Amino acid sequence: MGLNSFVKLFTPKDRVFYSIFEEVADNLNVMSQVFRDALYEKEDEKKDNMLITLEALERKNDEATRRLFLELGKNFITPFDREDIHYLAGSLDDVADYIWLSAKSIVNYDINEVNDTMRAFSDVILSATGALRVALLGLRNMKDLKAITDACGKVNYFENEADKILDKALRHLFLTEKNPIELIKLKELYQDMETVTNKCEDSANVIESIIIKYS
Amino acid sequence: MGLNSFVKLFTPKDRVFYSIFEEVADNLNVMSQVFRDALYEKEDEKKDNMLITLEALERKNDEATRRLFLELGKNFITPFDREDIHYLAGSLDDVADYIWLSAKSIVNYDINEVNDTMRAFSDVILSATGALRVALLGLRNMKDLKAITDACGKVNYFENEADKILDKALRHLFLTEKNPIELIKLKELYQDMETVTNKCEDSANVIESIIIKYS
Amino acid sequence: MGLNSFVKLFTPKDRVFYSIFEEVADNLNVMSQVFRDALYEKEDEKKDNMLITLEALERKNDEATRRLFLELGKNFITPFDREDIHYLAGSLDDVADYIWLSAKSIVNYDINEVNDTMRAFSDVILSATGALRVALLGLRNMKDLKAITDACGKVNYFENEADKILDKALRHLFLTEKNPIELIKLKELYQDMETVTNKCEDSANVIESIIIKYS
Repeated sequence: MGLNSFVKLFTPKDRVFYSIFEEVADNLNVMSQVFRDALYEKEDEKKDNMLITLEALERKNDEATRRLFLELGKNFITPFDREDIHYLAGSLDDVADYIWLSAKSIVNYDINEVNDTMRAFSDVILSATGALRVALLGLRNMKDLKAITDACGKVNYFENEADKILDKALRHLFLTEKNPIELIKLKELYQDMETVTNKCEDSANVIESIIIKYS
Repeated sequence: MGLNSFVKLFTPKDRVFYSIFEEVADNLNVMSQVFRDALYEKEDEKKDNMLITLEALERKNDEATRRLFLELGKNFITPFDREDIHYLAGSLDDVADYIWLSAKSIVNYDINEVNDTMRAFSDVILSATGALRVALLGLRNMKDLKAITDACGKVNYFENEADKILDKALRHLFLTEKNPIELIKLKELYQDMETVTNKCEDSANVIESIIIKYS
Repeated sequence: MGLNSFVKLFTPKDRVFYSIFEEVADNLNVMSQVFRDALYEKEDEKKDNMLITLEALERKNDEATRRLFLELGKNFITPFDREDIHYLAGSLDDVADYIWLSAKSIVNYDINEVNDTMRAFSDVILSATGALRVALLGLRNMKDLKAITDACGKVNYFENEADKILDKALRHLFLTEKNPIELIKLKELYQDMETVTNKCEDSANVIESIIIKYS
């Protein structure tokens, strides 16, 4: 019997949901870190490595989401409402998708120069997934509800920050950029990066509605 | 004891859902009115005021959606299916988000000249949120189901009208606008404005599936 | 008594859900076929007919989705979880919407020349809706779960293919297209066509979570 089957035997069935959510939490945070580091990197080679790493992480996330849905089908009893698990899994998957999409856009749109706006977005994305991770890791014990609520509040704060970065960046872009193709590239990339934080906020909102049922 | 706590004491718990939905219904309708009036305004100063007012209303709406989710967590018994309340709250929140996004885009994209297409969209958005309000206000009594169904039908009709305005406007834009940056601005704004009515239709569809359970 | 009422009398109530899903499955597959054929057509007249046919099919689909939601409201007992029916109906409706949107964009954006990328997308959309149809038709009997799982796997495969077509097409576009308005048109159309396969994948994911409950 392999270690995996052994652990499975002695894990109460609904505990599997916490494990997967924690795995996703870590994964999203690592994706954000890799993405941010690449945008602060000077060497192109490291950026290429970033894409390869992110693609692997995004697939790992897809696979985790798939396992969540399979467990949802197999388990009659779940640690919180089935619909909450469904929503949460879906919105966390969206976070990974949009980080991956943003990274790909830099390549697809042939963006050669990373600017301060992109770096600011990557910082705020890292902060948002960091706060989201704290909230997700708190779900297993539910012993410090205030810490979870505070973490969700931070996710909302960072989404708000991303919104302000986007508004300011778009205003600047439409006032100054006279090359329409450059304008399209940057506008799309900025909007995709801001969407990452929207998806973090969606996830935090589901977590808040989960913990309210326990308080 | 404050008036608020007093009212709460004597309100059956599930009535709180109707109150919040009615508050949101009014709020969306006022947002549409403020937005439409600003597009018919000649003076720039009034447009600036419009943005400030809309931002406050959008926040009020966010806060109402938040309260809906909190109540959903606290109340075991809800006036209609939990998942319907969840969907409805989410899609109504999207209506507010897209009105606010459309208003911001006019500023962010530095659009100086309001045209007939934008005004036509703002009219149809006002009509759609007006019909949506009638449907939402009917939920409390459920005594005139036909009036609710008719109001939902009107929301669908206005969404269809917005769709036609968009098709016609895009066709015209791609045939006549030779300045690519102008084309991008208008295309994005038109699509955002049309999305407001899509979100109204999503909300009306949930309302229809709620009332069918009572007929 | 008309044949329709006769059949209805002798059909267990929850069977109606299978019938509507099968109708939608066929409809989406025909839409994809009509769309693909038009993109391989040389004569403009036939393309105009395509739009008329697609509009009628899209309306038929809207009407089927509406019936699904009405049945969901009327029937207390459903063949699978209510929330799964809800999600599935919604995502299948999105498939139809994005096929119709892609077809309309060709007209709205005044795209005169159909290229190999568009044809490749139309092929992969046809394959994806074909596999989706197999999965949907398998739901009634649930006797060959492996066949359903395989079909869902194929939908995911085709979505992946569409993703690769999009990445390659965008990279090529941003490297070679110097006319910004042409670039906007093609970028938007490609993204809409790729979204059709995303919505097919969403539908396949719900089907997988349904059948896992039966295995």
